Amino acid sequence: MNDVSARFGAPAMETDTAAAEAAAARQAQLTKPAGSLGELETLAVRLAGMQRRERPRVDRVWLSVFAADHGVAARGVSAFPQAVTAQMVANMASGGAAISVLAASTDARLELVNLGTVAPVPAHATIRDAIIAPGTQDFCAGPAMSAEQLDLALGEGAAAVERALANGAELFIGGEMGIGNTTAAAAVACALLDAPSARITGPGTGLDADGVVRKRACIEQALALHRHHLSDPAEVLARVGGFDIAALAGAFATCAQRGLPVLVDGFISTAAALAASRLCAGAERWFLFAHRSAEPGHAAMLAALDGRPLLDLGLRLGEASGSVTALPLLRLACDLHDGMATFAEAGVAGG
Amino acid sequence: MNDVSARFGAPAMETDTAAAEAAAARQAQLTKPAGSLGELETLAVRLAGMQRRERPRVDRVWLSVFAADHGVAARGVSAFPQAVTAQMVANMASGGAAISVLAASTDARLELVNLGTVAPVPAHATIRDAIIAPGTQDFCAGPAMSAEQLDLALGEGAAAVERALANGAELFIGGEMGIGNTTAAAAVACALLDAPSARITGPGTGLDADGVVRKRACIEQALALHRHHLSDPAEVLARVGGFDIAALAGAFATCAQRGLPVLVDGFISTAAALAASRLCAGAERWFLFAHRSAEPGHAAMLAALDGRPLLDLGLRLGEASGSVTALPLLRLACDLHDGMATFAEAGVAGG
Repeated sequence: MNDVSARFGAPAMETDTAAAEAAAARQAQLTKPAGSLGELETLAVRLAGMQRRERPRVDRVWLSVFAADHGVAARGVSAFPQAVTAQMVANMASGGAAISVLAASTDARLELVNLGTVAPVPAHATIRDAIIAPGTQDFCAGPAMSAEQLDLALGEGAAAVERALANGAELFIGGEMGIGNTTAAAAVACALLDAPSARITGPGTGLDADGVVRKRACIEQALALHRHHLSDPAEVLARVGGFDIAALAGAFATCAQRGLPVLVDGFISTAAALAASRLCAGAERWFLFAHRSAEPGHAAMLAALDGRPLLDLGLRLGEASGSVTALPLLRLACDLHDGMATFAEAGVAGG
Repeated sequence: MNDVSARFGAPAMETDTAAAEAAAARQAQLTKPAGSLGELETLAVRLAGMQRRERPRVDRVWLSVFAADHGVAARGVSAFPQAVTAQMVANMASGGAAISVLAASTDARLELVNLGTVAPVPAHATIRDAIIAPGTQDFCAGPAMSAEQLDLALGEGAAAVERALANGAELFIGGEMGIGNTTAAAAVACALLDAPSARITGPGTGLDADGVVRKRACIEQALALHRHHLSDPAEVLARVGGFDIAALAGAFATCAQRGLPVLVDGFISTAAALAASRLCAGAERWFLFAHRSAEPGHAAMLAALDGRPLLDLGLRLGEASGSVTALPLLRLACDLHDGMATFAEAGVAGG
């Protein structure tokens, strides 16, 4: 994994302490009791540090959704058939998926990156063709992907961030679509946190109790099979990850290295964020967490990343739907920070 | 209080079960795992029932902020001087307050209703002059207001809702501005919940520990003084409430009677919502709760109203700032409900 280490092992960029301090000083002068805007104040100050300006903005938002199939789906770990991955990519492209509606409503720029599905994805202007293979291999029987495939997936994530930067993005959001990917994400989380499968694994998009038992057993089997190859985060991604998860990890590490804030979605994206923080020291400084997933293992990953999610609405859809749902909170935090009068400007006592 | 009982004692309108059921049936067909949008699904279904249509909208939002001074402020129960009430109304009118920025960012129609302040409020096109008195009386020494004043305040709230309806509002938000009003709201909550002051009373906008002790003692004194007059919700509002809180209670009861959904803000608005639900049976069916306030007594009121707030961001500003911050969640819930494709439309398996 030397290539990967060279590309993604560089540490995260430092945030701008002076800009964050200037933003905090501004917050203290705005016409409200000190601290009374709670997390909205914290958001404005953190974004100021990341964007190196006292008054941050998140008007231009880039949203890359990575789609890929997962060999482990053959083990019956999802409530949906594998053909749904390609069908949902088409649905996203034609505007009918949750993420399409949310992106349109919030004016986030959505691109779909097809990393490889079992059923073919129809050509569409907004679908980027970046097929690595028609899905990963079943990681209960061997590695999910080769080192070369991992490098391609991480590179697709990095390339998405470069496109975001070239388009002037002020915030990056990553999403995923792939039947079976909560199983892969749970396996990645178990490996990175050294946690038992039962602590991390839940029903995903809607498994019944028998399905959850099957899913947990499958992950335990994979962790046992690959146990001598799980000390390195890149190896974890290759052994028990997926193309989508690896691309997200590559994207998030690149954001941290290039200095672009990330609004991390739920369970699967957080597994990728955890991998990114292991690849790239300090990457978590660049992560904001959108929501607490209904998936039980999310809390353990958030704790490891010191992440405090903005929303807790019982979402468990993926696709980056939680991130885009939380996006208006970031925008309102920036609007308040920029638009409110100071005590002096308004002639209000008590500042 | 017979006048009040006659005007506000009518029960709440029933919501439309058929519309809610149609909305729930639609949610089950949208291209996502069943239930995976969590509270966003619940919101769409509840709003459908309230708005009597399968596909609700909250594009047109009416926002009335009621400003008033409180005699109890003389007891040193706020971190801010009483002159700040009028200064902040002017700041709201000129666009510098949190609620002004939030209303502009979300295109909510903001009106300011001046119910009476100690310092004069300057004239301004967006300030509605509805002065009852230059603030209430100190409720530690006697009733905060007379029965006639209560009726005027409740009536101002009802009139705001009629203006909202005349302007085609699809959602009503009420806010308040009044130095000392967390003390009045806490007293109202204690009286309505029969709870001790220590369980309900917190630092408000920023009291220190000594101030909180003073505030609790003041509320205990008032509850003891008025103890024979706290069995009727209208009496509670008159004895230990405020013009702003009574107007909010009148507005919320009127919304419930007229069938307009309410997005209730934090501590003070929830005290008014609790009073409205005691005045008007079933009013809570029309209430959505925006956020969990940092003020400790909020949880007890939410429990009494069976309210589950959307946000928990440590907000404690008031002004309806929490409601407007949560407004995009309602809009995204409606957009998803309306805009997503069904499994059949998208040709996706598994519906």
